[in-house]
Amino acid sequence: MSPDEANLLDKIFHPESIAIVGASTSDQETGWVARLRNFGYSGQLYPINPRANEISGLKAYPTVKDIPGPVDYAIFNIPRRFAPQIMEDCAAKGVKLAHVYTAGFSETGEEEGKELEAQLVASARAGGVRVIGPNCMGIYCPKAGMTFNPDFSKESGNVAFVSQSGAEAMRFVFLANEVGIRFSKVISYGNAIDLDAPDFLEYLADDAETDIIACYTEGVKDGPRFVQAVKKCLSRKPVVILKAGLTESGAGAVVSHTASLAGSKVIWDAFFKQTGAIQANVMEDVSDTILALLHMTYPKGRRVALVGRGGGIGVIAADICERAGLKVPPFHPDTRNQLGQIIPEAGTSIRNPVETTYGMGGAAEFYAKGLNIVDADPETDLIIIQLAVDVYGGRTADLPQQVTEAAEVLCNTVKTLTKPIAAVLYTGGHAHAIEAILEARGRLLEAGIPVYPGVEAASKAISKLIGYRELAEKH
Amino acid sequence: MSPDEANLLDKIFHPESIAIVGASTSDQETGWVARLRNFGYSGQLYPINPRANEISGLKAYPTVKDIPGPVDYAIFNIPRRFAPQIMEDCAAKGVKLAHVYTAGFSETGEEEGKELEAQLVASARAGGVRVIGPNCMGIYCPKAGMTFNPDFSKESGNVAFVSQSGAEAMRFVFLANEVGIRFSKVISYGNAIDLDAPDFLEYLADDAETDIIACYTEGVKDGPRFVQAVKKCLSRKPVVILKAGLTESGAGAVVSHTASLAGSKVIWDAFFKQTGAIQANVMEDVSDTILALLHMTYPKGRRVALVGRGGGIGVIAADICERAGLKVPPFHPDTRNQLGQIIPEAGTSIRNPVETTYGMGGAAEFYAKGLNIVDADPETDLIIIQLAVDVYGGRTADLPQQVTEAAEVLCNTVKTLTKPIAAVLYTGGHAHAIEAILEARGRLLEAGIPVYPGVEAASKAISKLIGYRELAEKH
Repeated sequence: MSPDEANLLDKIFHPESIAIVGASTSDQETGWVARLRNFGYSGQLYPINPRANEISGLKAYPTVKDIPGPVDYAIFNIPRRFAPQIMEDCAAKGVKLAHVYTAGFSETGEEEGKELEAQLVASARAGGVRVIGPNCMGIYCPKAGMTFNPDFSKESGNVAFVSQSGAEAMRFVFLANEVGIRFSKVISYGNAIDLDAPDFLEYLADDAETDIIACYTEGVKDGPRFVQAVKKCLSRKPVVILKAGLTESGAGAVVSHTASLAGSKVIWDAFFKQTGAIQANVMEDVSDTILALLHMTYPKGRRVALVGRGGGIGVIAADICERAGLKVPPFHPDTRNQLGQIIPEAGTSIRNPVETTYGMGGAAEFYAKGLNIVDADPETDLIIIQLAVDVYGGRTADLPQQVTEAAEVLCNTVKTLTKPIAAVLYTGGHAHAIEAILEARGRLLEAGIPVYPGVEAASKAISKLIGYRELAEKH
Repeated sequence: MSPDEANLLDKIFHPESIAIVGASTSDQETGWVARLRNFGYSGQLYPINPRANEISGLKAYPTVKDIPGPVDYAIFNIPRRFAPQIMEDCAAKGVKLAHVYTAGFSETGEEEGKELEAQLVASARAGGVRVIGPNCMGIYCPKAGMTFNPDFSKESGNVAFVSQSGAEAMRFVFLANEVGIRFSKVISYGNAIDLDAPDFLEYLADDAETDIIACYTEGVKDGPRFVQAVKKCLSRKPVVILKAGLTESGAGAVVSHTASLAGSKVIWDAFFKQTGAIQANVMEDVSDTILALLHMTYPKGRRVALVGRGGGIGVIAADICERAGLKVPPFHPDTRNQLGQIIPEAGTSIRNPVETTYGMGGAAEFYAKGLNIVDADPETDLIIIQLAVDVYGGRTADLPQQVTEAAEVLCNTVKTLTKPIAAVLYTGGHAHAIEAILEARGRLLEAGIPVYPGVEAASKAISKLIGYRELAEKH
């Protein structure tokens, strides 16, 4: 990436001035102008609307060309038929970057949309305007006050997300924010008539504010360039990619979404194997894996100590772990002896999985005593602990208190552990305890413990973490 | 099953008198005596405790032999070392059935436990007492006021569950109750020194109150008898089986739980293929599949109309459906034309998946207009609708209202549909809307719409439903 290109990309995330073309008089409290200002954008904002003098308290201009000062960035929020003309205005004004939020172009599959897109491309190229979109949400960069949704977290983080789909960008930020993931930069790039995934990936590879990169794609235009960009990223930081449309049904859906060529499963399988990028199938996989990357040190191997529930739940959890590519071996005899001393009653298991919740004053007490014993076991590499609130509290009134107590003790105990640990906390249902459960999740996450809604999510994410590390060591 | 055996099994669920051996003086409000009485058990209850005259307001007896009237059923809630002697008392008294709740026998792997279990078997056989357990929760039969947890639903239903694991029995009833599944009979049978899964399955095959049977097993003692019992059930009603311990890790965990022989994956694969039983991997699979069996008519094929979210979410959902064994084909051109008339804006998809939430007054309005068009499409066999509250509401304050409205309209619209439909309603997170979301789920379930927490759960359950039907037609 040339210094000029890097500067241009920098400008996308930190424009000094933005024109909102199609600033609406009817949504002055929620439209683009208000949204950016309320989110903390501190540069110049120019509402463009030929039928208004003032919007959201700012002077409005009839066209981009009427703006007195320089304009770095223009957001197109106008009916599609006007887009090519607006692009010409931007070119005339010397606007560097256009984010075409407007949809209805090639992704519709209609001739009219395709034709308009071709005109848009021509206007942009002729005028030297670089374009994000069309048919996309644009940029979320909390540090710079840039956002496409007012409810995203204003806190910055070290995760970047590059998304072909606008709805997935929206959904993923909420999903990730919910479990404490914070972003450096998020880009929803849509039809990518100019700037495309490889441009953003190359920039993010160099970006000191980004330690983990996630990407949603339905298809790429320039395969070799995409591979090269992903490899550049991977030489420095982990990349998690959801390639959607790998089945016949999904590929069909891609056609009507972004009109991309979905590409064959064989090619994409080879891509993941060759690059070492972490593959995800659903967005929940992406955030689950990021949680592991953020909070866990790399386990030395794939052997799990399952703590918290024995019995049938333990058996099922062991099956789930192995299906995800992990193992649940028996503990070393010394570990079992030590556990046997603090777990008094038979019917509980000390072999692995280890049962912690019956006949010993609740789970919280065990965490303080037993986790260190498990941590020292030489036969296992990491710990997954089930705070199985759906069982040990049943529907009893003291479930909220039990959850709170268990989380508190775990947060303290984890400081003394040497092996990576992940927690499973069931968040569905339990209306009467949901506040306590969500609060417990927040506390665990703050204490640096990745929290998952089930053993399946936990074991898949950890397996991906280990797989990434194994491939990274080979490359 | 002989008439005598059927009568005996009947007695398990409807005993006229129960002795609670080891009725505690310290938990008079929550112990077995109070639990049964509060749950509605209306037969004779005899607390047994040599150191009490009265427990939970009932006269207590020193031993079973001191009870004046006949005793159908005895629950053993005593330290394991007393179990053989109590069994002898029961034999002397002429007790027909003993539920040995007490654990600490062969499942511990210790000599002492094994020896005690052998003594227990000998006493029971010699005395002609039939046994459930040891190491199990026993019976939940709401119609008869029998339960092992006070918080289970008191409503009866048509689903039976036979579980080797007590914790799984507990967990599953809560899990299932949560989504409106109601039970005829639940049996947690533990170590099965006498009555075993095939006994209960054969009884349930004949049971007029049971339409669907679920089973959790870690291993079976008499393979051919188990196969025969499952086949008998399947000739009349669907059976969903979770065989735990099919991986090496899981089989290892089985050893320390119920000391069963887990059996090889090859054998169990053949079992499922041969019998047509529906296989589940986790208990959530079991309840998801039961919801489909309860609420959906059998789809004529595997072609899904995906409604509610297009874009990236639609692509991912289509991939998920196909991975689960379903297909998401394009709609017939007539369907697309009709949808195009009510979905005005480009950028939304009318091909399948169909986007319903932008630019058309919200999802609720579409449900009323568009679902009938989708329902009439000749290229699809069933509908999965995503009430994707995590997207269309974002974190906005009116999310609860949107969810409530969408659920209400869907409940009304569904009455006019001809094809089976399932709804996806994300229940995790969204603390500020969780009450509305859970209420909406309840309303949808009451309206006969199975509700799932994700497209993956929905498509897997529906695929199992179809697979069951396909195999049942062959057999």
